[in-house]
Amino acid sequence: MCIIYDVQIRARYNETDKMGVVYHANYINYYEIARTEMLRNTGTYSYREMESDGIMMPVIEVQSLYILPAYYDELLTVRVTIKELPTAKMTFFYEIFNEKQELLNTGKTVLAFINSATRRPCRPPQKLINCLKAKL
Amino acid sequence: MCIIYDVQIRARYNETDKMGVVYHANYINYYEIARTEMLRNTGTYSYREMESDGIMMPVIEVQSLYILPAYYDELLTVRVTIKELPTAKMTFFYEIFNEKQELLNTGKTVLAFINSATRRPCRPPQKLINCLKAKL
Amino acid sequence: MCIIYDVQIRARYNETDKMGVVYHANYINYYEIARTEMLRNTGTYSYREMESDGIMMPVIEVQSLYILPAYYDELLTVRVTIKELPTAKMTFFYEIFNEKQELLNTGKTVLAFINSATRRPCRPPQKLINCLKAKL
Amino acid sequence: MCIIYDVQIRARYNETDKMGVVYHANYINYYEIARTEMLRNTGTYSYREMESDGIMMPVIEVQSLYILPAYYDELLTVRVTIKELPTAKMTFFYEIFNEKQELLNTGKTVLAFINSATRRPCRPPQKLINCLKAKL
Repeated sequence: MCIIYDVQIRARYNETDKMGVVYHANYINYYEIARTEMLRNTGTYSYREMESDGIMMPVIEVQSLYILPAYYDELLTVRVTIKELPTAKMTFFYEIFNEKQELLNTGKTVLAFINSATRRPCRPPQKLINCLKAKL
Repeated sequence: MCIIYDVQIRARYNETDKMGVVYHANYINYYEIARTEMLRNTGTYSYREMESDGIMMPVIEVQSLYILPAYYDELLTVRVTIKELPTAKMTFFYEIFNEKQELLNTGKTVLAFINSATRRPCRPPQKLINCLKAKL
Repeated sequence: MCIIYDVQIRARYNETDKMGVVYHANYINYYEIARTEMLRNTGTYSYREMESDGIMMPVIEVQSLYILPAYYDELLTVRVTIKELPTAKMTFFYEIFNEKQELLNTGKTVLAFINSATRRPCRPPQKLINCLKAKL
Repeated sequence: MCIIYDVQIRARYNETDKMGVVYHANYINYYEIARTEMLRNTGTYSYREMESDGIMMPVIEVQSLYILPAYYDELLTVRVTIKELPTAKMTFFYEIFNEKQELLNTGKTVLAFINSATRRPCRPPQKLINCLKAKL
């Protein structure tokens, strides 16, 4: 009843900080990459196409728990999960693992659907719903 | 019973994204800048000094709610609040306002105290406690 | 015969890397901040206004020499210099100093003028020329 | 007489700016990713290992020419070229192409070899020389 998708992201040098670990705000970028790849590979409707079709998905909520640090050059696995079909909002859950399969981070983002022209909330595109329904 | 501190941050071009607004993960950076300036100006113990003294404060939890967008070149006010003395953890609350005093974002971060040498949790430095006690 | 402008930028934690110094690509961001503040304070025509007026200034060339490292929380001075009036292009020179007035970096960027609507090269706005002429 | 290596990098949302294109400083990050992957795949000596062995390679010079913009979600090809064995310095050349094989950017970085402990210049590690010699 879930869509689960794993994306691999290698920690970049510029993402580390002077503590020698990946700076915490970069995990929020990883979340975006993971959900983008999930959308691209789950259906036939990438986020790039959705924006071309006039719908944007701004983030309206972020939560993140940091359990263990990630280090430079590690090949991280970001697991993104959708538990239900989007309504006015769409919620994604994340778990980040290192190469030893240790859980480094869990997170959640909530995104809204916005009409690019009016910048007002809108319903999720039917094409996205259809892609997800086929998988959920 | 609170320490409240306001920091002004001008939104940088590279912090915007193709939606034309400040990319959401950058608010997490703004939080860091705000709490750093608060520590610098509230007491006599900056975060830089604390790290020199062998104590690091990694972020272990982030929460953020996005209400209105921030635009390029806006002079944002990040209000950071401490409500209680740190124990093993230290919690900061944030509100971000634009030039019209509209509330754009609220957030919270929880940080731990870590001994840089052992990378193990430790108690907050007495010097920090003293600075904060004088203000709270 | 030059316009010289100094901007102070405090090195942010997220701008450091695991070498413990400011990651080199961030200097390119500092250049942008410096020239933006120069334009804001030199005349009456900020870059934000210029974009609102339909003219963008994409960077077409960057050069940077790294001499000494910058460290977390240092209050850097970025000195930006214009040596001549813009034609189809506008060239800015940079020097970055630390708190000890040591020269850390020198750089140069060349920017073009682009009409936002057509995305084609255009002449620099007369308003900008006038602001600069009054100072050069 | 050259080592040439191609790396594919997908442009991330947070790397775009309000012009709707990849912000210019991010190309400098792409250069780093490209040379890191080249080192990983060309020999048996990754940059991560080199740092573990006590040698760092700070960037001492960057040059970049921007020809055409890169857009969100494009799968860019970063071609990195080494033309000669490192001495006290190592020079990398870059070309970035979009999916249509249009040349977007050319660049060059010069890196030094530094002993991590002393933070002083040192000779390139023999292991790196050997890896490169076998390919050049």
